[in-house]
Amino acid sequence: MRWRYVLRTVGALIVCIGLTMIMPLIFALSYHDGSELPLVKSMLLTIATGACLFALFHAHRINVMSHREGMAIVALGWLGAGFVGALPFHFAGSFPSFVDAFFESVSGFSTTGASVLTNIEVVPRGILMWRSLTHWLGGMGIIVLSLAILPFLGVGGMQLYKAEVPGPIPDKLRPRIRDTAMVLWKVYLLFTVIETVLLMLGNMDLFDSLCHTFGTMATGGFSTKNASIGYYDSVYIDTVITIFMLIAGINFSLHYLALLGKPSHMLKDPEFRFFVGVVGVFVLISTLSVFKSVYGDLGGSFRYAVFQVVSIVTTTGYASADYELWPALPQSILLFCMFLGASAGSTGGGMKCMRIMLLIKHAYRELLRLIHPRAVTPVKLGRRPVADDVIKSVWGFFIIYLGLFILASFLLAAMNVDVVTSFAAVAACIGNIGPGIGTVGPTENYAHLPLMAKWVLTLCMLLGRLEIYTVIVLFVPEFWRK
Amino acid sequence: MRWRYVLRTVGALIVCIGLTMIMPLIFALSYHDGSELPLVKSMLLTIATGACLFALFHAHRINVMSHREGMAIVALGWLGAGFVGALPFHFAGSFPSFVDAFFESVSGFSTTGASVLTNIEVVPRGILMWRSLTHWLGGMGIIVLSLAILPFLGVGGMQLYKAEVPGPIPDKLRPRIRDTAMVLWKVYLLFTVIETVLLMLGNMDLFDSLCHTFGTMATGGFSTKNASIGYYDSVYIDTVITIFMLIAGINFSLHYLALLGKPSHMLKDPEFRFFVGVVGVFVLISTLSVFKSVYGDLGGSFRYAVFQVVSIVTTTGYASADYELWPALPQSILLFCMFLGASAGSTGGGMKCMRIMLLIKHAYRELLRLIHPRAVTPVKLGRRPVADDVIKSVWGFFIIYLGLFILASFLLAAMNVDVVTSFAAVAACIGNIGPGIGTVGPTENYAHLPLMAKWVLTLCMLLGRLEIYTVIVLFVPEFWRK
Repeated sequence: MRWRYVLRTVGALIVCIGLTMIMPLIFALSYHDGSELPLVKSMLLTIATGACLFALFHAHRINVMSHREGMAIVALGWLGAGFVGALPFHFAGSFPSFVDAFFESVSGFSTTGASVLTNIEVVPRGILMWRSLTHWLGGMGIIVLSLAILPFLGVGGMQLYKAEVPGPIPDKLRPRIRDTAMVLWKVYLLFTVIETVLLMLGNMDLFDSLCHTFGTMATGGFSTKNASIGYYDSVYIDTVITIFMLIAGINFSLHYLALLGKPSHMLKDPEFRFFVGVVGVFVLISTLSVFKSVYGDLGGSFRYAVFQVVSIVTTTGYASADYELWPALPQSILLFCMFLGASAGSTGGGMKCMRIMLLIKHAYRELLRLIHPRAVTPVKLGRRPVADDVIKSVWGFFIIYLGLFILASFLLAAMNVDVVTSFAAVAACIGNIGPGIGTVGPTENYAHLPLMAKWVLTLCMLLGRLEIYTVIVLFVPEFWRK
Repeated sequence: MRWRYVLRTVGALIVCIGLTMIMPLIFALSYHDGSELPLVKSMLLTIATGACLFALFHAHRINVMSHREGMAIVALGWLGAGFVGALPFHFAGSFPSFVDAFFESVSGFSTTGASVLTNIEVVPRGILMWRSLTHWLGGMGIIVLSLAILPFLGVGGMQLYKAEVPGPIPDKLRPRIRDTAMVLWKVYLLFTVIETVLLMLGNMDLFDSLCHTFGTMATGGFSTKNASIGYYDSVYIDTVITIFMLIAGINFSLHYLALLGKPSHMLKDPEFRFFVGVVGVFVLISTLSVFKSVYGDLGGSFRYAVFQVVSIVTTTGYASADYELWPALPQSILLFCMFLGASAGSTGGGMKCMRIMLLIKHAYRELLRLIHPRAVTPVKLGRRPVADDVIKSVWGFFIIYLGLFILASFLLAAMNVDVVTSFAAVAACIGNIGPGIGTVGPTENYAHLPLMAKWVLTLCMLLGRLEIYTVIVLFVPEFWRK
């Protein structure tokens, strides 16, 4: 492991994050909201920290990164972003402790959207802009991570996407990351601009439009309003955000191909079809269920059901209705969606549709093998057979995901958090959703949880976001052996 | 598929079940409790039905059973047992509908122990004896199923036990089933006699001792008292039952070897060590947790914690305390135990320790493979490498188990059963435990659930008991093709 190289890269990343603080600073200056000084202090401290790391660890440029170096950069990069991202929150004094500020920052960069703010609307706008910007930056990171880094590290089945990502396919990882990132970020930026404009056309001001767009495109979920999207009570805004949440939940390389005039790639993609199919069925069932027992009006039922299902399955976490008041069936569906998650290669979290599809297909093959013990049929995704190694990675991912979910829930329960809240809070954090059920529902927040629980959940957000393996290998002794 | 042979075998099985009704009849006659006539009617009807099937489908004896025939016999055998087992309940009029009687009977034969009786103590003793006897007969069936049939059908990783079961190893399935069954049933009978005697020494009468022994050895959980084992409030009885629940949760071929003077097989068995280790850790944590916040007395805390953890992890379901009043941590542990279950080859249900061990080991291997992509290390159980095919079966089992759990929970939620009860009831039935949490907790029962929910849960009990695959293949079109 070339630690100098790893730390230098993380340093460069932190400098970049520091530079982006200019944007919230501009808003702070224009609103004179009192967050100017905290933001300037944070920016200088962040840039200085990053520059120190960068300068201290002088290393030659390397073209071939090892698996371990890749994972160390990813894990330390996100952790470092979480720390420096907490500085504006801490200096502005909007949070009772640094743990809370750190929780909020990691929640931002991991695009989770779980908040410890009890009253969002009193926080200075410069700080709220930074809060939403952490989502957007996190989203950028995820796109690169899931389509340019993880496929080559062979993490949890992501190797499936090795051949699928746009751009040239050189053997060396670094140039590939750069090229792929640039292509996909253009797509991400394009959608961001379009959504912001559309929201502004719905009479949302520039500040709120930007913040909500950042939360949507990154499938984050931080809002500038206590009532989340429900504050606007507007069919137009609900519709725009629903559509862009869906977009953000789809593999960005498919968007890229569609924008190049090849939409057939998207329509033929098995994961896309699965995702759309599942969302369709769940929206239908939820609409009928809330129509019968809550709203009594088919249009309104559809509006709330589609928003909430899409918000949870894409792991965004915006709320337009309090789904805890809904009947048991749509609530169960939303709980299931927390685990399912969006497509691989999107900014969404959760287990991802691709993995669940492979698991189901594998299980069905095992069923057939019982009937015809000697027939060997490969698992296929679309028309392409999937290598056994990929499926094994997916299984491994699945069991570690469940194992961490159970372990973290036990830890929360040990702090006397009630059973339902323990399970839901962990599911919502490890899946990067944000709101759960119990006492962390869509109208509540995470502020009341014990301090230790916030640490556990912060770790869960990071684990979930970095596809678990990338963080958890750091705890395996083998990782540190020469 | 030689249907004549399948149905003839099921007929023979039903005749045997009819003959066992003599035992509750003897108790009915001695107590004059009014259940004599219902039992006689049921017995005649059962024997007649079985005899008809047997006589109608004349078939040659066959020595080599196909996979499909084996699974059809198992599934239809248990279903048939459930139907004829419901007759005494139905004729005695102790249940409001045949659905309830069928639910109770399947709960018995599947050794689940979920009850729809709101007041057990008013039911005639002959009927209660039959109710407990269904457990014991179900337990006998499970032993044969899991150690003599499933290993050869290659169901869900049970092929691991191909070489482990006692008795000669001929290639042909039928003689093997018979020999293995006889050997293991002797062990089962021996433990049954010992526990009954021990319970009688604790001042329990013969009737209650037998019923509770049947419920213990089969890891069933039907009690003759509304307050379950809590009724006796006796440290001695709690201890005896705890020990025998543990025994019933251990692979019976290990018991057989231990009784032959080879206890080292048990002590070296990886699944046994895992099972004992997990139980030990969970008992310790639960004891400390309830000591701190419920009982305030270490001895009493240990007594209730060990009873409840063992009862749930072995999937028995007896209750000596209302664990719904316990803190969140032990409640979460009990919920996890519902999925974990006991050892393969025991009478317990759930996913089984062997499978969970293999899943964890596989996940860890995947973690190592990320660090050393080219190193290939086989998953080992003890010192023995486990074939990839076995692990694939286990994965398939695991995902279908979870899938059915989710699907059935959705169905219950759709009937407006609340979310927690939906999930817990399905977990408790598919894992063959009995009591869950929510409105089906240890002090409640399943009577209040909608009729359709009872059908769903009945199917879950059968699916869980027959290791899922055996039932679910019947729904795969391939199964019916020539």
